[in-house]
Amino acid sequence: MLVPRVWSSVRPGVSKVLSRTLGGWPSGEGRRMDLSGIYPPVTTPFTATAEVDYGKLQENLHKLGTFPFRGFVVQGSNGEFPFLTSSERLEVVSRARQALPKDKLLLAGSGCESTQATVEMTVSMAHVGADAAMVVTPCYYRGRMSSAALVHHYTKVADLSPIPVVLYSVPANTGLDLPVDAVVTLSQHPNIVGIKDSGGDVTRIGLIVHKTRSQDFQVLAGSAGFLLASYAVGAVGGVCALANVLGAQVCQLERLCLTGQWEDAQKLQHRLIEPNTAGLKRDNKSEIFRHPRWKKAFF
Amino acid sequence: MLVPRVWSSVRPGVSKVLSRTLGGWPSGEGRRMDLSGIYPPVTTPFTATAEVDYGKLQENLHKLGTFPFRGFVVQGSNGEFPFLTSSERLEVVSRARQALPKDKLLLAGSGCESTQATVEMTVSMAHVGADAAMVVTPCYYRGRMSSAALVHHYTKVADLSPIPVVLYSVPANTGLDLPVDAVVTLSQHPNIVGIKDSGGDVTRIGLIVHKTRSQDFQVLAGSAGFLLASYAVGAVGGVCALANVLGAQVCQLERLCLTGQWEDAQKLQHRLIEPNTAGLKRDNKSEIFRHPRWKKAFF
Amino acid sequence: MLVPRVWSSVRPGVSKVLSRTLGGWPSGEGRRMDLSGIYPPVTTPFTATAEVDYGKLQENLHKLGTFPFRGFVVQGSNGEFPFLTSSERLEVVSRARQALPKDKLLLAGSGCESTQATVEMTVSMAHVGADAAMVVTPCYYRGRMSSAALVHHYTKVADLSPIPVVLYSVPANTGLDLPVDAVVTLSQHPNIVGIKDSGGDVTRIGLIVHKTRSQDFQVLAGSAGFLLASYAVGAVGGVCALANVLGAQVCQLERLCLTGQWEDAQKLQHRLIEPNTAGLKRDNKSEIFRHPRWKKAFF
Amino acid sequence: MLVPRVWSSVRPGVSKVLSRTLGGWPSGEGRRMDLSGIYPPVTTPFTATAEVDYGKLQENLHKLGTFPFRGFVVQGSNGEFPFLTSSERLEVVSRARQALPKDKLLLAGSGCESTQATVEMTVSMAHVGADAAMVVTPCYYRGRMSSAALVHHYTKVADLSPIPVVLYSVPANTGLDLPVDAVVTLSQHPNIVGIKDSGGDVTRIGLIVHKTRSQDFQVLAGSAGFLLASYAVGAVGGVCALANVLGAQVCQLERLCLTGQWEDAQKLQHRLIEPNTAGLKRDNKSEIFRHPRWKKAFF
Repeated sequence: MLVPRVWSSVRPGVSKVLSRTLGGWPSGEGRRMDLSGIYPPVTTPFTATAEVDYGKLQENLHKLGTFPFRGFVVQGSNGEFPFLTSSERLEVVSRARQALPKDKLLLAGSGCESTQATVEMTVSMAHVGADAAMVVTPCYYRGRMSSAALVHHYTKVADLSPIPVVLYSVPANTGLDLPVDAVVTLSQHPNIVGIKDSGGDVTRIGLIVHKTRSQDFQVLAGSAGFLLASYAVGAVGGVCALANVLGAQVCQLERLCLTGQWEDAQKLQHRLIEPNTAGLKRDNKSEIFRHPRWKKAFF
Repeated sequence: MLVPRVWSSVRPGVSKVLSRTLGGWPSGEGRRMDLSGIYPPVTTPFTATAEVDYGKLQENLHKLGTFPFRGFVVQGSNGEFPFLTSSERLEVVSRARQALPKDKLLLAGSGCESTQATVEMTVSMAHVGADAAMVVTPCYYRGRMSSAALVHHYTKVADLSPIPVVLYSVPANTGLDLPVDAVVTLSQHPNIVGIKDSGGDVTRIGLIVHKTRSQDFQVLAGSAGFLLASYAVGAVGGVCALANVLGAQVCQLERLCLTGQWEDAQKLQHRLIEPNTAGLKRDNKSEIFRHPRWKKAFF
Repeated sequence: MLVPRVWSSVRPGVSKVLSRTLGGWPSGEGRRMDLSGIYPPVTTPFTATAEVDYGKLQENLHKLGTFPFRGFVVQGSNGEFPFLTSSERLEVVSRARQALPKDKLLLAGSGCESTQATVEMTVSMAHVGADAAMVVTPCYYRGRMSSAALVHHYTKVADLSPIPVVLYSVPANTGLDLPVDAVVTLSQHPNIVGIKDSGGDVTRIGLIVHKTRSQDFQVLAGSAGFLLASYAVGAVGGVCALANVLGAQVCQLERLCLTGQWEDAQKLQHRLIEPNTAGLKRDNKSEIFRHPRWKKAFF
Repeated sequence: MLVPRVWSSVRPGVSKVLSRTLGGWPSGEGRRMDLSGIYPPVTTPFTATAEVDYGKLQENLHKLGTFPFRGFVVQGSNGEFPFLTSSERLEVVSRARQALPKDKLLLAGSGCESTQATVEMTVSMAHVGADAAMVVTPCYYRGRMSSAALVHHYTKVADLSPIPVVLYSVPANTGLDLPVDAVVTLSQHPNIVGIKDSGGDVTRIGLIVHKTRSQDFQVLAGSAGFLLASYAVGAVGGVCALANVLGAQVCQLERLCLTGQWEDAQKLQHRLIEPNTAGLKRDNKSEIFRHPRWKKAFF
């Protein structure tokens, strides 16, 4: 942990963090967190009255805890973070931390549209137990999200975050790709440790691995669909929705890749693409009505 | 006003509104609000420390109050609503209502990603003085935003909103167009009075006007760039960012269209496209650094 | 006609045209052609054996000849030019010219991917009777089609064409919009008289009219769907597929716009959008099997 | 070779081919061609007067002949086929065949917009020596190119082609992806032996390999940028523009993949992405002016 987790309150704390930050992330110290491995992006369960079902969340995490995952992502796209209030977002992180063994990494999605809100959410999530913050690109003003704007945003967040930051690019939802040149610039920040890339462009993933090789920057594939290919070009793991339902198989694919059993890996990868795609198709069909929060809405 | 503005609290109030709603929006009564005219989408001014500058907001509104606008939009895309907290969003509406004469309509952007949050924001904005709610399409899960999903979302919001609802489609920001069939379905809801369409597709605008003609549904153009063309196909007004800086000219264009002086209207429209486009280009160049909230971020 | 139509052969002729060209399109002389009015983009009929049905073409043109069109477009997107051989393309132009009264303009689509082929096709089409050449943007290498590249292409074609050139932008088919700055530059060429714009962006159409106003450059709307709006911002006519089936109504809409009867125009425009859209939808459903050439293919 | 290459003339010949075809591609016989390996997509050189430079073509092929390529693609996107006349397209194939050793496969791009023209070009290219035809998706009417339409198109071409057909999907140029379900259907045709996929979506490539595994259908990656990843998911080779300039390295990458030396393969792949990307960037900057045919155009 780079700065104390105890944080009397967000706003007062910031100047302290900043002074420490400007004092400097000690060279070579910032990049300690090893992200290698598989993470299920945990869904947020809801009750019939559309409240967050914390009991069910705990139960799900216990079940998932039996697989050799490196950790868990909460509040990713799969966790439907845009539907939660700020306090619910923090509560989910807090409960997840309590339910998980200490050796499992907890990556918490803390991205908001504004830099300020993202910093506040990140600091608060650190306070309640997140090990790292996964920060999605802001996107409502996507026409203005140049590399310079995005570098500015992430630099501020990383400067002020007490925990390491993982960049998160998911063009299917945001309509924008975090540009490679911005990723390369940001990889030099001592408090930015990697990227979750959900775009599926393996040329881009290879290029990012290559151009950040001197930074010990880590790339996580954003789906089981291109996990093998991502390992082949240098990714260190994946955040895979499919791991929520086929955890053993996704971890097995990881093992085959890490031990160089590429033929078996290929066969297993092939078998996993269809369920992955089928799952996405089913979601598209059922539309948002699969979301209890939407389904029940207000009733 | 369709239901009492006094609202003891959101959640308890809902069932009452709902029972009134289900009891029925009295036929022929719901669609009373006349939206015809020009609205500047008011920007949210910030102080050097990135706080909302309510004094400056009031000053701006007083200046804008000298033009013959029908009313004002607050918390639209131009008002940078995604950068504000919930309480700031409400405070801006409240202050704007106090600063404005009673005969000026106050349209408040109340859209959030979730249906529940949108309902709560809409109810609260009504409580602090909004005359109508302008509700942007949710967009993070755009791949799932089918017509059915969007009709579901807007119907819930309109059912529970104490003030009329204006649909808001702005594909440049959201990456999705509210489909025409969804607009036609929603136009039949007694508490949905119109749409602000910022896409610039005048064939679509004409088709919406035509297919909702029996519903007394009103269309507002979302930019001065296609205001004349929109009037030509049946729009009743416009929400025009350009009206913040060239208020007299945009109102003059309205008058020329309404009085059938199409030749003069064309000349004026032509003169307004370039400043409009230039303004957008300048924004694109300066990127997000024109936003005090972003520029200053946290400092 | 700017240069003699008699053309001993394409290649030898070019240097002559060029010397005339470089000698100069006499100032003020080049822009004589008045494009104002409505044009049906004529379909290319096929026999059951997938040959071009010239008899049916003549018959269609005679039927269409009873409407007060300004002229006819052959070999546009609606004429399925990509499916015809070079000799068929010329034969269609030749037969159309013979079937049409002298006072009807014949606009022939002569665009090819390469500049050289476009020049040759344009010269040949002039030779067999086209009054003007409508030149679609090349598009296979759309990633490289910068404004500079497109200005280069069209300038060459216009330099060497014995007949006036009409630019043709149809992003639904080509995946690229001829940029406004390129249009403005090209509007200064003495042998480029206008543009057919099928994109439906009326802000863009207004801007083009405005920025080329000193050039007597003429804009034609590419669809009946936005014909009224285009007239409202300064277009002089339209190339409307709908005019093939509802010729009287489209010409009536033109008359209402030209005589300033905007209310009636609006009503008529509204009634024409749905058939227009319905037609497009039907095409999409039936797919390419409505094309005899494709349906029958080779048999 | 499935049918005699000697072809008295295209049209009369077709019924013969057809009768043979309908008589049937002997089961298990059609899929003999082994595509495994690396292919440079040969550029078409031009003289200063924009004629095809056949001498330079021959020279280039001799140079490229020193690398252990499986064969050569002529008339792909890199060969600028849209800029050539039909007779030039055939002449290039003919000259290439003469310049190449018999054991090198010659894949010739024979795609045209219409089915009929594609069949004629394919038959003619077979006649002058192509070993297989690489057929790009038609794209001008991309809005109508449903799976059904594309299956219809390719089935006709494959039915009538005397040589095996390779599907070719290149969305950057055509604006459309050949849908996976269409590829799977077409993989069952006895005269369709594979696909060159240039889209770079490795999940899709893996899915195609998996869903066509019972058909002995072969996938070639369309770029060196994702060659390693494609091998990892089951591709058998690649058509790589980079092989024109770094032939030894691309063949070395192939060898490393085939022999399971994935670590070295990864390092080499990384080193090849930047030159590949840089090449594309340079092309984008120089625009079409790098093309002699365009630069010189008609002079």
